[in-house]
Amino acid sequence: MEYETPLFFHVMQYADRADRDVVDMVSGNPDWEPPEALREGLRDYASLEPDRFQYGPSEGLLELREEIAARRGVDAEQVIVTNGAGEANYLAMARALERDSGDEILLTDPVYPYYPGKTTMLGGTQRFVATDETGQLDPADVRDAASEETAAIVVNSPNNPTGAVYPAETMEALVEIAEAYDAILVSDEVYDHYDLSGEFASALESDSAHRIVTNAFSKSMAITGFRVGYAIFPPELVENAKSRHMLVNVATTRPPQYAVLRALRETPPEYYEENRALLRERVDTFTDALDAAGAEYTTPRGSFYVMARFEDYPGTLENVERLIDEAGVAGMPGEAFGDSRSAWLRFALVTPRVEEAAERLATYFG
Amino acid sequence: MEYETPLFFHVMQYADRADRDVVDMVSGNPDWEPPEALREGLRDYASLEPDRFQYGPSEGLLELREEIAARRGVDAEQVIVTNGAGEANYLAMARALERDSGDEILLTDPVYPYYPGKTTMLGGTQRFVATDETGQLDPADVRDAASEETAAIVVNSPNNPTGAVYPAETMEALVEIAEAYDAILVSDEVYDHYDLSGEFASALESDSAHRIVTNAFSKSMAITGFRVGYAIFPPELVENAKSRHMLVNVATTRPPQYAVLRALRETPPEYYEENRALLRERVDTFTDALDAAGAEYTTPRGSFYVMARFEDYPGTLENVERLIDEAGVAGMPGEAFGDSRSAWLRFALVTPRVEEAAERLATYFG
Repeated sequence: MEYETPLFFHVMQYADRADRDVVDMVSGNPDWEPPEALREGLRDYASLEPDRFQYGPSEGLLELREEIAARRGVDAEQVIVTNGAGEANYLAMARALERDSGDEILLTDPVYPYYPGKTTMLGGTQRFVATDETGQLDPADVRDAASEETAAIVVNSPNNPTGAVYPAETMEALVEIAEAYDAILVSDEVYDHYDLSGEFASALESDSAHRIVTNAFSKSMAITGFRVGYAIFPPELVENAKSRHMLVNVATTRPPQYAVLRALRETPPEYYEENRALLRERVDTFTDALDAAGAEYTTPRGSFYVMARFEDYPGTLENVERLIDEAGVAGMPGEAFGDSRSAWLRFALVTPRVEEAAERLATYFG
Repeated sequence: MEYETPLFFHVMQYADRADRDVVDMVSGNPDWEPPEALREGLRDYASLEPDRFQYGPSEGLLELREEIAARRGVDAEQVIVTNGAGEANYLAMARALERDSGDEILLTDPVYPYYPGKTTMLGGTQRFVATDETGQLDPADVRDAASEETAAIVVNSPNNPTGAVYPAETMEALVEIAEAYDAILVSDEVYDHYDLSGEFASALESDSAHRIVTNAFSKSMAITGFRVGYAIFPPELVENAKSRHMLVNVATTRPPQYAVLRALRETPPEYYEENRALLRERVDTFTDALDAAGAEYTTPRGSFYVMARFEDYPGTLENVERLIDEAGVAGMPGEAFGDSRSAWLRFALVTPRVEEAAERLATYFG
């Protein structure tokens, strides 16, 4: 079996090994501070009794699951704490495929490349539905692509890489399509704290046995390395997913769960608001420079990413490497996200050097 | 798809909810102190710069992989740091099955119940090879069971649940059988620091493209909740396993990796020796009491477990629950480990109350 490894790590390695200073805009790693309560949680954990260093419950620490359940308006029994959104999406897609109700997974184009990789690994087939230029998904196009073969529809809003935020009507329509074809809508909402549009709608707003919501604290608390995420399953689907989680990982790491619980309880709303404000500022800085460079681009309504297109500079891996060497800015090739964006590059606004990167691009392309 | 959830969590929950004081000898969670350097590592990590809170390399922190590789005499490129031995075994078994070289997995009877669970989840079939009364595996029996259908042979030494330690000749013969049938020997060596016999032999001693070694710091550092393990693959097999690891988990949690690296470097051999000495003492205490209770039992040569058989008291889940309620001792039903041990109970010696538990059993059965 062959399955594609996402390109992120390759590009990051290339940038690391470059002979010059490079502004890293490759991956979605926040560069801002995690919540102070998270650091305190970890520090306190280090002095706990030895029994706290052992396995917690496989599905996650009960208090953390209850805290998540209360915030999301679901029952704690529906929540599995996972090794980041990565495992949450893996469990959700596996759960959809193992129901003997089709083996096709509907994905968007452009797409976050882990989804097609997971699909292939799980033995499913991929079918892509194009989004429009702003990244919006038309439910009518999804309905046209859906069939009895459809096991799942996987979406991500706020979206990586387009920055689109799907309105409530889109989410509701997607749940209805999943219901009509005995499929599962997998809604990856990991950027929910970075909705800059005010229009984010969770798939949880539609009560249904045909949707699984995945999320993580990786982005919201700036801790992508901690690997604490979660999936919310309908009661009908949760038991097998718990078994798979147990059989793959036994349990999610405990010290990070403890620290996240502390941070969830003690972090004021201002923490999240300040990070959104910082992101807004960076969007303005970066898109101003793209204007100066004469580039086409999408202004993100959520998430961390700007897609940009420079004349006669397609979004190939080769051009990304050339940009690293010649301009000192590292982005992601648009082709990594699907054919429709092969002319584009993706830049992640998670560096304090956004202004510098913007100037470098304006100089290089201007 | 249906796959069996191991019974451990069920029994632990039952014991937790009991109306009386219960000595917990269910699961293999060490009750002793983790290394002091591990606590310090976690404490220091809490104050690091935000970039250290983000994704490390998917295959694990380079320094940790190099430290593991140096200790095990392999190349760091062969090492993947995993979410505990649980994920390491999952990756190894998946890697064996995806080669289109058979879909049968040879397991021992008795067996650690996660292995058959993982086999079913991965779409493989199980075939069991009986061990002798002491838990030793005769390679001739494995050879008889092997065929072109054999994708993997999964063994665990020091063994859970029997306490057997396989000699070097057994390990070498198993590697040869794997080579003869284009199968993979998966050698789970998570109890290697608890070899009480001095006869432990790693599968790494045979250089071969047909063996994968799995391990973790869960038991050796008394941190089952941290989820830091590793798998050592032959160079020919490692790339696909890295992709799967990335597609399932993205990466292993970072703060625990940092703490484990510190502990690996700074913990003196005495730490491990003291824990072995403690375990030896408990084996003596517990087996003396079993003698007094007139029970049959196996004296472990490694790992944490004593299997015991009491007259007219088969190792069913029902009898385990009765023992919790009536004697205040929680073990595991032998039937969870396979038909051959259905008359037996398994007791984990990872509680400071081994003596008390032994007395309770002697009184109840004596």
